[in-house]
Amino acid sequence: MSIDTSAAQAASTALLTDHYELTMLEATLRSGAAHRRSVFEVFARRLPDGRRYGVLAGTGRLLDALEHFRFGEAELEHLRRARVVDDATIDWLASYRFSGDIEGYAEGEVYFPNSPVLQVSSSFAEGVILETLVLSILNHDSAIAAAASRMTAAAAGRPCIEMGSRRTHEWAGVAAARAAYIAGFGTSSNLEAGRSYGVPTSGTAAHSFTLVHDDERAAFEAQVAALGQNTTLLVDTYDVAKAVRLAVEVAGPHLGGVRIDSGDLLQQAQDVRALLDSLGATKTRIVVTSDLDEYAIAALQAGPVDVYGVGTSLVTGSGAPTAGMVYKLVQREDADGQMVGVAKKSKDKQSVGGRKYALRRLENGVARAEVIGIGDPAQGDTDDRSLVIPLVRDGQRVENADLQGARARHTASFEELPPAARQMSRGEPVIPTVYED
Amino acid sequence: MSIDTSAAQAASTALLTDHYELTMLEATLRSGAAHRRSVFEVFARRLPDGRRYGVLAGTGRLLDALEHFRFGEAELEHLRRARVVDDATIDWLASYRFSGDIEGYAEGEVYFPNSPVLQVSSSFAEGVILETLVLSILNHDSAIAAAASRMTAAAAGRPCIEMGSRRTHEWAGVAAARAAYIAGFGTSSNLEAGRSYGVPTSGTAAHSFTLVHDDERAAFEAQVAALGQNTTLLVDTYDVAKAVRLAVEVAGPHLGGVRIDSGDLLQQAQDVRALLDSLGATKTRIVVTSDLDEYAIAALQAGPVDVYGVGTSLVTGSGAPTAGMVYKLVQREDADGQMVGVAKKSKDKQSVGGRKYALRRLENGVARAEVIGIGDPAQGDTDDRSLVIPLVRDGQRVENADLQGARARHTASFEELPPAARQMSRGEPVIPTVYED
Repeated sequence: MSIDTSAAQAASTALLTDHYELTMLEATLRSGAAHRRSVFEVFARRLPDGRRYGVLAGTGRLLDALEHFRFGEAELEHLRRARVVDDATIDWLASYRFSGDIEGYAEGEVYFPNSPVLQVSSSFAEGVILETLVLSILNHDSAIAAAASRMTAAAAGRPCIEMGSRRTHEWAGVAAARAAYIAGFGTSSNLEAGRSYGVPTSGTAAHSFTLVHDDERAAFEAQVAALGQNTTLLVDTYDVAKAVRLAVEVAGPHLGGVRIDSGDLLQQAQDVRALLDSLGATKTRIVVTSDLDEYAIAALQAGPVDVYGVGTSLVTGSGAPTAGMVYKLVQREDADGQMVGVAKKSKDKQSVGGRKYALRRLENGVARAEVIGIGDPAQGDTDDRSLVIPLVRDGQRVENADLQGARARHTASFEELPPAARQMSRGEPVIPTVYED
Repeated sequence: MSIDTSAAQAASTALLTDHYELTMLEATLRSGAAHRRSVFEVFARRLPDGRRYGVLAGTGRLLDALEHFRFGEAELEHLRRARVVDDATIDWLASYRFSGDIEGYAEGEVYFPNSPVLQVSSSFAEGVILETLVLSILNHDSAIAAAASRMTAAAAGRPCIEMGSRRTHEWAGVAAARAAYIAGFGTSSNLEAGRSYGVPTSGTAAHSFTLVHDDERAAFEAQVAALGQNTTLLVDTYDVAKAVRLAVEVAGPHLGGVRIDSGDLLQQAQDVRALLDSLGATKTRIVVTSDLDEYAIAALQAGPVDVYGVGTSLVTGSGAPTAGMVYKLVQREDADGQMVGVAKKSKDKQSVGGRKYALRRLENGVARAEVIGIGDPAQGDTDDRSLVIPLVRDGQRVENADLQGARARHTASFEELPPAARQMSRGEPVIPTVYED
């Protein structure tokens, strides 16, 4: 299937930018610092409370958005009218094209505190105005992917459906569907995610469908007539047991599935499974969908649940709605043209200056440490897996991994982690971040 | 300033829709139920844990999005290729225009559990496919507005700046800036919010600006040269006291402001105020910005802080990232053409059928109850304020309140609430929801 990304990315992304980035641009164009070669690094100082690993997502969307980061006449006119910056800065923006390099972790890769998940190398001016766009996309998508990864880990192979669009911003829902797919969800309810990114979509009916018909029988008959007996019938509008009997009566024992969206899901799943089996509908799947999160999924693993549908907790990051990544200047050219590491000295927000490499240290295929250093890594330890790949070179995108690639990358990275990564309980990052000299 | 909404709303919104809405459409087109007159209601069963009131936001964005809810050839082609629905359904969608009525609470209005904040009256088919679009926009924007309202209440007149774009989805950040403005924030960092919605924007410089220059003095001199002495200088890159002295030395005692973004903000604000005053910079404002939420703002009220900048906690709803509203069929035509109330009977998610009115019951200008009933309200009590206004009539938008109107509506609604609405502590809704027969 060809993928049409026109709808999600038609608009210019250039004003998805904080005001201060353009005032910094104006001031550095005057001082001359705008032209200093610079390296900005994206990293999270810590993982959300109790999480064992993070998941990088959004890289593909970021590279798309970067291609639309152009100040056209409409954008420039706003900056003029609102007097955001002076004419010289507007002239500079009119011809803006990112011409630098970007490298980072592959999309879908897991990360840890201070992992340098993205590094932007360019003039200060070219890099500083990308801060908000870069962080918005990576912080959102990574928050969703991290939650999704815990849910698919808890589901341990049982399929998960993303259905949270209604509980988040309308375009955030599209990105959330994409991030969830990277982290192992099988399908999404979101049609735009299907169109824009090729995420498989699915869905059957809501309570309103039952209620608009004269009775449950009329509704089930209408659904089976339109969607076939392999459809999933929603059985909790009135009385679950009666609805299950009716569903099998209407669709026959080859009914695809029944969905339960309320009540004690574990008990009901057991009751419904027994009832379905007694009716001969032994292959009919049980889909459960009521306010699930990774903990509820883990608890439901004890029951005969075939499919989990997850909404609110997925699209809100299950308690951690943002990944908390920051975009920091870590290296820049000095007056003599030499590159020097820089970092602020604030008491509670210190950074480590310098351009980084990053390796996952493995022992017998199991991750043991996230190794970060300045410059080039020492040669020798062949079990180290290098984490940083080129994404943009001289302004040209060189990374075009599709969503399947990111999904595969996530699976492989997760499988490499120590078993504690699968624990739902809160704890420390599952491997330590180690700085190498 | 004229407002250009092209960038935020250029794309078709028609696929911001859950797959099941279109399969329900297909099945009801076959069964005939598609054409039954129906009323869908949007409400929240409860407020987020401990919140005293909700704030409705997003109505204006929803009405914009509805105008772009059109299935063009690109959208239809996706539905064909992905085999989402059959050809008859695709033909129906090709000519889709919402032709019904929508009414609801005014944007900016406060709400309570079960307040009917939006009611959509149309054929089942026309209404059912709007579920996701309606809920996404209202759930997101209302979550942000509710958090923002608590923050501006805590700030008690001190200006608040929205600066959270980097911690949420790139377009959610634009909507968040708009919602925060409705709930009393003075400005936003987000340039697209300025362009799309006329939200005032502001910003000066980040740590990277100081770090890219050879030293703090060069940075401050560059900023003052470009932005004037009324700018705000960031003083915590190295040593706050030294930076404050330098800032006044460079900009003079009429320096506009200094910003502190780390450390013990209350103590630092006191120290910095004393230092500024001793340097003659008695009018220089102190801006604080490090991971603030409504509780931190409330604590900082004891200090000499002039402006609060709020990021992460605002755009993530300060612990409640979605408003949790649902979109339920509450009334529909029966086989005899009569309108009848409908509601599901699930144990933990019961609904009240029927089309609602809603009043805010006032005593001496103070809200005492949210009064909801079916049909028309009893006449007589002149202190009741009717909450439901027409938004769309026969498919035509009739509500065009601008953002200033929504902002004024929010202020007036909030002022009407009992004093407990201003408490930061967790508690019950500040007025009860009462069903009237």
